[in-house]
Amino acid sequence: MVVNAKAQPAARTIVQKYGGSSVATPAKVLACAQRVAAAVTGGSRVVVVVSAMGDTTDELLALAQAVGGLDNKREVDQLLATGEQVSIALLAMALKTLNIPAVSLTGRQAGIGTELRHGRARITDVEAGRLEAELDAGRVPVVAGFQGTAATGDTTTLGRGGSDTTAVALAAAIKARECEIYTDVDGIYTADPRLVPGARLLARISYEEMLEAASQGAQVMHLRSVELGMKAGVPIRVLHAQRAGMQAGVGGTLICDLATANQSMEHRKAVTTVALKTDIGRVSLEDLPSRPGVQSEVFKRVAQAGISVDDIIQHEVEPIGAGTGGERTCNLVFTVDRGDLPEIGPIVEAVLRVLGSGRSRVDLGLAKVSAVGAGMQSQPGVASTMFGALADAGVTIANITTSEIKVSCIVPEADGPRALRAVHEAFGLGR
Amino acid sequence: MVVNAKAQPAARTIVQKYGGSSVATPAKVLACAQRVAAAVTGGSRVVVVVSAMGDTTDELLALAQAVGGLDNKREVDQLLATGEQVSIALLAMALKTLNIPAVSLTGRQAGIGTELRHGRARITDVEAGRLEAELDAGRVPVVAGFQGTAATGDTTTLGRGGSDTTAVALAAAIKARECEIYTDVDGIYTADPRLVPGARLLARISYEEMLEAASQGAQVMHLRSVELGMKAGVPIRVLHAQRAGMQAGVGGTLICDLATANQSMEHRKAVTTVALKTDIGRVSLEDLPSRPGVQSEVFKRVAQAGISVDDIIQHEVEPIGAGTGGERTCNLVFTVDRGDLPEIGPIVEAVLRVLGSGRSRVDLGLAKVSAVGAGMQSQPGVASTMFGALADAGVTIANITTSEIKVSCIVPEADGPRALRAVHEAFGLGR
Repeated sequence: MVVNAKAQPAARTIVQKYGGSSVATPAKVLACAQRVAAAVTGGSRVVVVVSAMGDTTDELLALAQAVGGLDNKREVDQLLATGEQVSIALLAMALKTLNIPAVSLTGRQAGIGTELRHGRARITDVEAGRLEAELDAGRVPVVAGFQGTAATGDTTTLGRGGSDTTAVALAAAIKARECEIYTDVDGIYTADPRLVPGARLLARISYEEMLEAASQGAQVMHLRSVELGMKAGVPIRVLHAQRAGMQAGVGGTLICDLATANQSMEHRKAVTTVALKTDIGRVSLEDLPSRPGVQSEVFKRVAQAGISVDDIIQHEVEPIGAGTGGERTCNLVFTVDRGDLPEIGPIVEAVLRVLGSGRSRVDLGLAKVSAVGAGMQSQPGVASTMFGALADAGVTIANITTSEIKVSCIVPEADGPRALRAVHEAFGLGR
Repeated sequence: MVVNAKAQPAARTIVQKYGGSSVATPAKVLACAQRVAAAVTGGSRVVVVVSAMGDTTDELLALAQAVGGLDNKREVDQLLATGEQVSIALLAMALKTLNIPAVSLTGRQAGIGTELRHGRARITDVEAGRLEAELDAGRVPVVAGFQGTAATGDTTTLGRGGSDTTAVALAAAIKARECEIYTDVDGIYTADPRLVPGARLLARISYEEMLEAASQGAQVMHLRSVELGMKAGVPIRVLHAQRAGMQAGVGGTLICDLATANQSMEHRKAVTTVALKTDIGRVSLEDLPSRPGVQSEVFKRVAQAGISVDDIIQHEVEPIGAGTGGERTCNLVFTVDRGDLPEIGPIVEAVLRVLGSGRSRVDLGLAKVSAVGAGMQSQPGVASTMFGALADAGVTIANITTSEIKVSCIVPEADGPRALRAVHEAFGLGR
């Protein structure tokens, strides 16, 4: 996209976000500054958001652990926020050595207000006055990602995907043309190229598809920033931080609304991307009494433990010899991150005691293959194409879940990559 | 001093400041927390001020240098402020593991307002509301030293002696009983014990004497925090951070008003402490025209270059064969830090050109021995005792300057330690 220097300021404004690996060393900070400088000299008004350098966060957490403070969430936030503060100062310095006027801003200085909830605060408001003033003065604001300030003045951090969320929130607040997320991959692919060699880079993908793909295992973007982008209507471009030819408004994958995403595809396919999710833990509750309140009893306790549930599948079981007066029971299956399984055990046991019947089983060796595409709403046969592909590949399907724009199959983990390639092939997504 | 838990809150409140070497490792942070905890369980309300851990500041400056940003003072401040932010978080964590409720506060969160002058901002005001609220809630505020915030929201640092200054400023704002500066020495001595083995620890010293001693080379306390303590009437106790028996209100040296300082000494001596200052550069301007405006011409230019002048000595010279009509000239001698000499050369040359006469000489190999004592105002013969001691030791005196409470002699640098011991001995300061 050619930038028109006479366009309205907002139309010339972009947000660029660089992750920790892009600023891991002083040399990389300088390389990063050159990329920003190129956008500025190309006529863009640029706001930069950066993460902490390389392993800084881990090093800081090690210090916290050494004084027994890892569970002191307020102080962990105060501690971790220093990581980004170092990056912004260094990047602002590096820009100035390239004769690009720049000014570093902490979360607080950039006006990022959050809830008072340490470790995973949500942004409540962005007071963009300072940011706008710096842009109007011709300076590049370099903003600390991942952090904000509660109304009390306390430092908060935003949790996983926090820096991307900062970038999208700022882009929304200043009505930027787009938010560019620089990463170590070229963009969003039709499948993970490490698993599917023929995977193809997508020029565009809709927010909805990206959300489904991310929740089904595509790891490039965190759900939260995509959700925020969708809500605020901020186009998000995912690009490679080191690759030549990637630049403001060009290259990578644009995550945008469905109408814009569809424009670029002559033959819109039913499926846009396929994903594989591993590290799945499956909990099966069998022979539960089929009566109102059972599900709520289960998931209330799981939620109270702070565990996120992925898929939920339930079906009723008629008693053997229907009409014999035996009670109907139900089987309830749900998946969680494998790491949450140890905590799930006691919760499930407690539920079964309360319900007075049923038994539980936990499975580890599973993965989930998903096909995602906004086009599948209008094209029949997507599910059967997928099942056929898996059958031809000799893959057993353990569970199936569907949404309007995705079909997911739980399969044995060992078959995961093979299943992914078969589905990718079946939908003609390769090069 | 026994703390009365029923005393007014302010009377039970102390500020404790720990330097970078006291918090250099997680183990030292925990040791530091134990000292704070002892004061709290002893009934004190404690505010803690800390510096950055060990070599953190140097490491951060190395990063800044690597991106060519050392001269970007705003960003250097943004960068360096992270050092103290790490320390406060860790110390607050460590206190909590000892069951002492604590809360870390950055300079901004602690309400420390400064000028917008990066690298050496002065504190303009302390908004102590949060600090008081935390103390009233029974928590120990752990405050980042060395930093503050300008009215613009920009991060500033206070420059040399900054953390001590933070501690004294907070003590003044909350009307603390005293401000304790924990260091790696036992307190203030009658002379530097590394140079004078018989030097004795002083229980008390007046602000005025401490200021003279510090400006004459005693390195324990920075002038600035002592000045602030004097102005605000905050007693400052200098103690050893690792030594047993040092605790809130006990041990070390109390820097206080003259009346209080005198109370503790049965036989107040004329001289309290002697000091040696090395790294002196001496500039001699000879045969300057003796007319109004000469001195101002010289020192205006020196001040414009940001160079601090230590002593100034001037004397007039009658022309040889007085009454022959020759003009009187004057010799102007001043001392500066040796490191400033390279900058002084061109300034002096420019001045001589403007004045139209005179010549300059620069000397390096000099040191200054000083005797400091509020008692010398009422006791005659201090100067002559000092000169006699130096004569007996065979030390040549190059220049002499005096103030109401000190006598200083510039001597060859090689003779410095010997001269210091001779003067210390002559005033009977040893054990």
